[in-house]
Amino acid sequence: MDFDAVIHNGILVTVDQRMRIILKGWVGIQAGIIRAVEVSLPDMAPPDARLTIDADGGIVMPGLVNTHTHLPMSLFRGLADDLPLIDWLNSHIFPTEARFINPDTVHRGTLLACAEMLLSGTTCCCGGYFHEDAVARAVAETGLRAVLAQGVIDFPAPGVPDPTKNIVHARDYARRWKGLNWLITPSIFCHAPYTCSDGTLKAAKAAADDLGLLFQVHVAETRFERDQSIKEKGLSPVAHLDRLGILDQQTLMAHCVWVDDADIATISRHGCAVAHCPESNMKLASGIAPVTGMRSAGITVSLGTDGCASNNDLDLFGEMGTAAKLHKVATFDPTALDAASVLKMATIDGARAIGLADRIGSLETGKQADIIVIDTRAPHLTPMYHPDSHIVYAAGRADVRHVIVAGRPVVRDRHLLTIDIEAVIDRVNDTARDIRSSIDGDAE
Amino acid sequence: MDFDAVIHNGILVTVDQRMRIILKGWVGIQAGIIRAVEVSLPDMAPPDARLTIDADGGIVMPGLVNTHTHLPMSLFRGLADDLPLIDWLNSHIFPTEARFINPDTVHRGTLLACAEMLLSGTTCCCGGYFHEDAVARAVAETGLRAVLAQGVIDFPAPGVPDPTKNIVHARDYARRWKGLNWLITPSIFCHAPYTCSDGTLKAAKAAADDLGLLFQVHVAETRFERDQSIKEKGLSPVAHLDRLGILDQQTLMAHCVWVDDADIATISRHGCAVAHCPESNMKLASGIAPVTGMRSAGITVSLGTDGCASNNDLDLFGEMGTAAKLHKVATFDPTALDAASVLKMATIDGARAIGLADRIGSLETGKQADIIVIDTRAPHLTPMYHPDSHIVYAAGRADVRHVIVAGRPVVRDRHLLTIDIEAVIDRVNDTARDIRSSIDGDAE
Repeated sequence: MDFDAVIHNGILVTVDQRMRIILKGWVGIQAGIIRAVEVSLPDMAPPDARLTIDADGGIVMPGLVNTHTHLPMSLFRGLADDLPLIDWLNSHIFPTEARFINPDTVHRGTLLACAEMLLSGTTCCCGGYFHEDAVARAVAETGLRAVLAQGVIDFPAPGVPDPTKNIVHARDYARRWKGLNWLITPSIFCHAPYTCSDGTLKAAKAAADDLGLLFQVHVAETRFERDQSIKEKGLSPVAHLDRLGILDQQTLMAHCVWVDDADIATISRHGCAVAHCPESNMKLASGIAPVTGMRSAGITVSLGTDGCASNNDLDLFGEMGTAAKLHKVATFDPTALDAASVLKMATIDGARAIGLADRIGSLETGKQADIIVIDTRAPHLTPMYHPDSHIVYAAGRADVRHVIVAGRPVVRDRHLLTIDIEAVIDRVNDTARDIRSSIDGDAE
Repeated sequence: MDFDAVIHNGILVTVDQRMRIILKGWVGIQAGIIRAVEVSLPDMAPPDARLTIDADGGIVMPGLVNTHTHLPMSLFRGLADDLPLIDWLNSHIFPTEARFINPDTVHRGTLLACAEMLLSGTTCCCGGYFHEDAVARAVAETGLRAVLAQGVIDFPAPGVPDPTKNIVHARDYARRWKGLNWLITPSIFCHAPYTCSDGTLKAAKAAADDLGLLFQVHVAETRFERDQSIKEKGLSPVAHLDRLGILDQQTLMAHCVWVDDADIATISRHGCAVAHCPESNMKLASGIAPVTGMRSAGITVSLGTDGCASNNDLDLFGEMGTAAKLHKVATFDPTALDAASVLKMATIDGARAIGLADRIGSLETGKQADIIVIDTRAPHLTPMYHPDSHIVYAAGRADVRHVIVAGRPVVRDRHLLTIDIEAVIDRVNDTARDIRSSIDGDAE
């Protein structure tokens, strides 16, 4: 077989059904698809290919899948920290969004976010925001794979001043992008049951269903949301969404921090997936989602970073380590969420949560070649007894050396090939200067 | 004034009493001491010096202080994860220590740990282990500053087969190293109240006091330890140590996870410091230390990584981010442990906890020049509204570009100047191969 690209001399952490680890192997890629995942025979040269990547004994694994984020919010990284949620939103995030979010700033913020994700080994992300056309155009420039949703909320939003038009906006966006770009899958994102009416939630879900797309929604992020829902509707947020009939296998619920056993049973029964964002939930003091309980109930739980404003980065290596440790201490069980489980959450379960498990999430023949190579020749990765443990507990974003999406090299030797990062940093710094001036002006 | 070295064109995060941040400044160093911390005047060239380091607009800050670790355990990084504590210790760590820990392996493991710490911005560490002579010799080769203790435990230990000799060993070690090397301060480390008799604890503390040295002890790490202490002695671990009269300002207590209000009052009254190890406590499912409560009681709480076997790295940037987020979610208070507080814990409070606050922990004239420079020109650090927030919530170990200890450059452009890291990695991998073979052999 003729390969377009071959990655050899690596430890293959396949994340296949048997969680096979091949201590010395190679991967062959043809037309963007993985066509071989093989053990290297002694003294065998790697097969011929137009592009040969030597993993130098490092780890070769599927790219990470970030299933919950808001890309343009990279503009607000560290703008306001250590504040109560309401103060943070109402005094900082919402006013800054109203003033500075437009298609141009969204475009530059998205490029910055994609640069950060690609450099840190994330090859696919899922999320939503406003001006999503601009988001999708920016992502398409970078070579990242993404499921991208136009946000729906019953308040005036950037680009959607009239909330009665929110469904139309979202549907039009999704129609435009459906089938337009192989790497971009449109989606529809209802902000939350407490910011969207029953009618909006049902209409948005119907629009997603009409187009066969993923429906996303923030659910039960805070205790306040859960308590308010019970007080006003007599139902938990999950039970409320269930009553509206919008829970099914094409629904991805972000957060699910405040869910009880009945909610977990409901989510499991409908086959919804949950995007778990441990660092955002910790930083905003929202709570600790019952991840081990949800997984035991058979729910697909994936990982997400959330937006940069509440994290403050888009680093799935960080989320893996945090998730693995957080749920051990939360359950007082050091065997909870072992390394292999967390590795699945960040790869194949992420792919499953966003409806792409047939295409990505593992190193298996027939799948898209979304692959990262980790440089393990570093003090903090020495020695190495178990590669999967190292991925979760010791490796970091900066150890990602090469990144390929759909067979296309996008990061080589830690350098972005598809983004002029110096220009993007300068453009984002220009926007940040404007934001800072406006804040300083307000303070005077 | 003639400077040996000048670091200029940086954002100075001083961690001085006023937490001053100088947005464009320079630091002058003479004979290893900080002699100037100044605002750069427009169009002013940096002062002349034999060595001029351009921070390129990055952050210049005091080196991080890791106040609890066991350096040679880097050899066991990721050897066994996701296990119950007793199984982990008895079936993996203790047998491997008994078989493979000797002065030679301790030396190579320590060099590896120092390489990891220096590269990640830690300029001073504090901890203890066995064969501490070999540890101290290795640390001295690397240029890292350290407080290093010989361990005391009432069981046969590496290098101390007869536990009745444990105090003699520790005292002899401490005497040898007192005043021997400007960067190495000896100390004595009693393992824990549940592994050391009352007599051993008192004798070890007396030996430390005789020599005017820091006394270290693990305290109340697990609920089991606390419950057992109450059952057997009728006292919590802290109350037990108090009754023995060994709590004072020269006592550093590691962990303190299971301490109640009375314990906190006791610790505060005696002026002991607490080394908080959030990631180790999470990974081993020990619990969440009441850090906000201890800080409110006026206790100096510093940060530590613990040993590599339970973490699995020596990364204080990781610990800062984890501590800041963990205590927010643990207290449901997003304002808890703000960025500035955590930054202090990792620097000046760390220095205070180990008795070196007059020498290190901040950028102030008269202090030792233990300084790191962070490269902020990266997607994940763009934009930057608040430098202190970025240090805690967005920066990572790999962003450390230059490191100076006592005025001596030890890392330059991310490369170690004092350690042949390739040789160290090879030597550690040799030891790891032996360990792996013995495990595989046992399994057959």
